[in-house]
Amino acid sequence: MTVHNSGDALAAEMLAVGAAARQAARAMREASAEQKTRALMTAAAAIRAAKDKILDANRADIEAAKAAGMPTPMVDRLMLNDARIEAMAKGVEVVAALPDPVGRELARWTRPNGLDIARVATPIGVVGIIYESRPNVTADAGALTLKSGNAAILRGGSDSIRSAGAIHAAMTQGLKAAGLPETAIQYVKTSDRAAVGMMLEGLDGNIDLIIPRGGKGLTGRVMAEARVPVLAHLEGLCHVYLHEAADLAKARAIALNAKMRRTSVCGAAETLLIDRKVLSSHGLPVLADLATAGCEIRGDDAVRSVFPPARLATEEDWRTEYLDAIIAVRCVDGLEEAIAHIETYGSHHTDAIVTEDAAAAEKFMNSVDSAIVLWNASTQFADGGEFGMGAEIGIGTGKMHARGPVGAEQLTTFKYVVRGTGQTRP
Amino acid sequence: MTVHNSGDALAAEMLAVGAAARQAARAMREASAEQKTRALMTAAAAIRAAKDKILDANRADIEAAKAAGMPTPMVDRLMLNDARIEAMAKGVEVVAALPDPVGRELARWTRPNGLDIARVATPIGVVGIIYESRPNVTADAGALTLKSGNAAILRGGSDSIRSAGAIHAAMTQGLKAAGLPETAIQYVKTSDRAAVGMMLEGLDGNIDLIIPRGGKGLTGRVMAEARVPVLAHLEGLCHVYLHEAADLAKARAIALNAKMRRTSVCGAAETLLIDRKVLSSHGLPVLADLATAGCEIRGDDAVRSVFPPARLATEEDWRTEYLDAIIAVRCVDGLEEAIAHIETYGSHHTDAIVTEDAAAAEKFMNSVDSAIVLWNASTQFADGGEFGMGAEIGIGTGKMHARGPVGAEQLTTFKYVVRGTGQTRP
Repeated sequence: MTVHNSGDALAAEMLAVGAAARQAARAMREASAEQKTRALMTAAAAIRAAKDKILDANRADIEAAKAAGMPTPMVDRLMLNDARIEAMAKGVEVVAALPDPVGRELARWTRPNGLDIARVATPIGVVGIIYESRPNVTADAGALTLKSGNAAILRGGSDSIRSAGAIHAAMTQGLKAAGLPETAIQYVKTSDRAAVGMMLEGLDGNIDLIIPRGGKGLTGRVMAEARVPVLAHLEGLCHVYLHEAADLAKARAIALNAKMRRTSVCGAAETLLIDRKVLSSHGLPVLADLATAGCEIRGDDAVRSVFPPARLATEEDWRTEYLDAIIAVRCVDGLEEAIAHIETYGSHHTDAIVTEDAAAAEKFMNSVDSAIVLWNASTQFADGGEFGMGAEIGIGTGKMHARGPVGAEQLTTFKYVVRGTGQTRP
Repeated sequence: MTVHNSGDALAAEMLAVGAAARQAARAMREASAEQKTRALMTAAAAIRAAKDKILDANRADIEAAKAAGMPTPMVDRLMLNDARIEAMAKGVEVVAALPDPVGRELARWTRPNGLDIARVATPIGVVGIIYESRPNVTADAGALTLKSGNAAILRGGSDSIRSAGAIHAAMTQGLKAAGLPETAIQYVKTSDRAAVGMMLEGLDGNIDLIIPRGGKGLTGRVMAEARVPVLAHLEGLCHVYLHEAADLAKARAIALNAKMRRTSVCGAAETLLIDRKVLSSHGLPVLADLATAGCEIRGDDAVRSVFPPARLATEEDWRTEYLDAIIAVRCVDGLEEAIAHIETYGSHHTDAIVTEDAAAAEKFMNSVDSAIVLWNASTQFADGGEFGMGAEIGIGTGKMHARGPVGAEQLTTFKYVVRGTGQTRP
């Protein structure tokens, strides 16, 4: 009975959150660019001003997490400090300075009957964001949804509930100062996981889009259960292909950077494909660089014949996103075989070719069906900031709506605005 | 045991369809604009050449439908004749003549580090289209997916299985003549409804998008069950708002056309909102026009006070898509009340304002959150052909990917093509 009652109470609370978000979405849709900028600038200042409060809340989260036996790398993710709070505030300011994505005229034409048709960018409406323990997502996601004129329902991990709450309070101050509804960014405070399930059901039609931001477990659950559209970032099984016409210096610099700059990011390379014609000339020095940098090499027989320290790669290796200092290396016979490998094993995230042959590069970039394809550049550029988008909420790996980095612009949709002079349809 | 075996056999068959589509999608992605045009022109000619075959197949479908007691309006939808076959062939030619939507450069910029980033339109991949008894969808949907470089899996209603099969054979001839895989347009021939369920599960990752085309029952089932993205057209509960500054002649012409030109289309007006200030001056002649044209009027008390023959509208009327010669009419006090009514009861499809006040029109079009908003034009313009898109597969009412008319361009996604000179990320 208690369970039933508390479930009812939670459901009522969550439905109220949804209804408030829908109402806030209308005010946000009509908010001016200036109001949104003011809200963001005030929020950034409020984050700085609340530094001590945020740090106190974070200490309490960390103590609770340690007491519950959370492993150290996860505690690190949860932890805030002066620098991380300053980075968060700066991030909000960067989003504030972006051009307003709402109201952009994406296309406009006139029909023979005189109808003037414009395709105009508009906010999506209510965006639900479900994330894990990083408390900074509260500021990042809040800022991007605010900039794009949406209302946000944020649901962070229960481990970071105090930290996220303190950051959320600062975001709310920004909204208030700009005369925007405070409910434009709501933070779901309950640690009851049933709240996530309710969000995935759409809160009675009051959520237009769900964005999961976290590991495979979270994303998988969201994709399996959501009854509303999901903008998901699945894994980044990224490839670097050294073509027979690769420049050696570029090959060495790009392969090393793509794998080792940061191994834990989704744009890190996981598989290296080397053309048989340059296996000794290019492959060997590249593999030596990687090994020297502390990377474990897992290669096929051809690779092991030129680089014997490599462990034998299994079928499983071609399918693995290590997110670690390990790389799978395969010898391929030409461009077609490289493309076929990526088609079979890749995750349609980010793939690069290193070559001085422009025709081969264009063929590769045309045929590889990934969100981002690169020619002579590191896969680690797969990032909204590096693309000039200011900030991102993730890298979309689906085909619908937005592929690649999802920034403020990608959190908009569009409408057709048709201006007539009394036209009727024959 | 039989059931189990036949289920297994169907599953194997459907998975093979999915795998063949995925393979065809790669060839289609790389098909040239010329190849696709040739395929479509040949298909149009093949439809004309196969006229007798298609009519024979259609006669068999109709006999079976009549024998099974299908109601006359549904038999009408199923029926083909010389004119309808010619219209189908012409439709395919119109799509052939459209500009190629694949490869368009949607944006391009250079980063300070010299990276050249382009956002380029690409096909989505494999599109599953689930429809009902209209056999012409086989040609329309096949042509649009072909033009946009996608592979299609078509699943029509079992009532039209013979007609659709004959049309599908003509489409296949086009693909063959252009050197494209015949499996780029597959038609699922089984009448087993379990095949639809399998498509909604995504055929082992081999369907990227499902488009339902049919009534509420079909669309509802697809939206509830699909495990892959859905581009759905829900109902069109469209409004016409006569503002206090409406021109009388325009008000009369637009209201009559929006409701009565064709009552069965999704862009037909279902509710008329009349500003109290012009209820007598404009409302009365508009309602008289509608009544004279055979439209049933259901109004609120204010409307009935100026137009007594109107039946009293109930709350239910504001929520009803009649698709018939019936209109709900409400008197509102100004623009804000009109917008609030549309926000509460509308379906975010198509809504129009009639006014000579430009500021009021812009406010209306900015605030009404619908796929199409019109100023001084009939809601019946909600149509891909009328927008100049050549053809459409439906009008999207969701917020993600494509809103409004879905033509060949809307059946594409994009990728980022990044050209470098050896850049690595610091």
